[in-house]
Amino acid sequence: MRKKGKIVLASGTFDLLHLGHVRYLEEAKKTGGKNAKLVVIVARDKTVGKRKGVKPIMPEEHRRALVESLKVVDEAILGYEDFDIACVIEELKPDVIAVGYDQAGIEEQVRRAVACSGSSIKVVRIEKFGRDELNSSLKIKTKISQMYRR
Amino acid sequence: MRKKGKIVLASGTFDLLHLGHVRYLEEAKKTGGKNAKLVVIVARDKTVGKRKGVKPIMPEEHRRALVESLKVVDEAILGYEDFDIACVIEELKPDVIAVGYDQAGIEEQVRRAVACSGSSIKVVRIEKFGRDELNSSLKIKTKISQMYRR
Repeated sequence: MRKKGKIVLASGTFDLLHLGHVRYLEEAKKTGGKNAKLVVIVARDKTVGKRKGVKPIMPEEHRRALVESLKVVDEAILGYEDFDIACVIEELKPDVIAVGYDQAGIEEQVRRAVACSGSSIKVVRIEKFGRDELNSSLKIKTKISQMYRR
Repeated sequence: MRKKGKIVLASGTFDLLHLGHVRYLEEAKKTGGKNAKLVVIVARDKTVGKRKGVKPIMPEEHRRALVESLKVVDEAILGYEDFDIACVIEELKPDVIAVGYDQAGIEEQVRRAVACSGSSIKVVRIEKFGRDELNSSLKIKTKISQMYRR
């Protein structure tokens, strides 16, 4: 019987996909070892709007499909409208949850939910890739708006 | 002996990667049939600057690596500084060259070069995917700049 790989869970908005996103997902998958399966939760427009006060540029279904078209990703799904990490854990039963360097708020929620669930899920933080200013959707947007203002 | 698949060549700038790019690449690969290999030429910053008067937002190596991280892509390479389709044909020996709906200028160059080379390379045009306004890097940039002006 073939040994089943671990399920690694990553998440994000992935508005304006850039290399920093791909590196985060690659590092996330590595934490699950050989044969790991990477499932990515893509935040819904509504959730992002509530959290950041402004909806993403790209609609949720575009963002989801684009993330799923990456080699490193096995499956990309849209998040719950009201993000509830306990439900996610219950439903997807991940072995590892990988949070990005800029997801401190989410990391805290995740650690609390994991502790409550009494499960042995590993929570890992993926460090930022490179120092490049273009590893951030916000900085890309700022660069574009500055170029167009001229 | 395993039958070797056809080599399909696609090209573009791929600044701000979106779903329209992925669909173009998927359709391009399909034209090569089973076991096709998709090689993508990503335009250099300099070439884009000369042609469009403004360099891309994302640097060439980021754009290349991001395109290569897509499932549908077998290999992504940076173009020649002075784009010369005859050299590309000579070096990569593609079976099919797929041009995008918005690459009319390139299509003409390609058809001329193929005719001159006396080869049997097929040139196909891939139609636009959907009517969505967000299937264009330019429209995405415009939307961003409008949002930031407010």
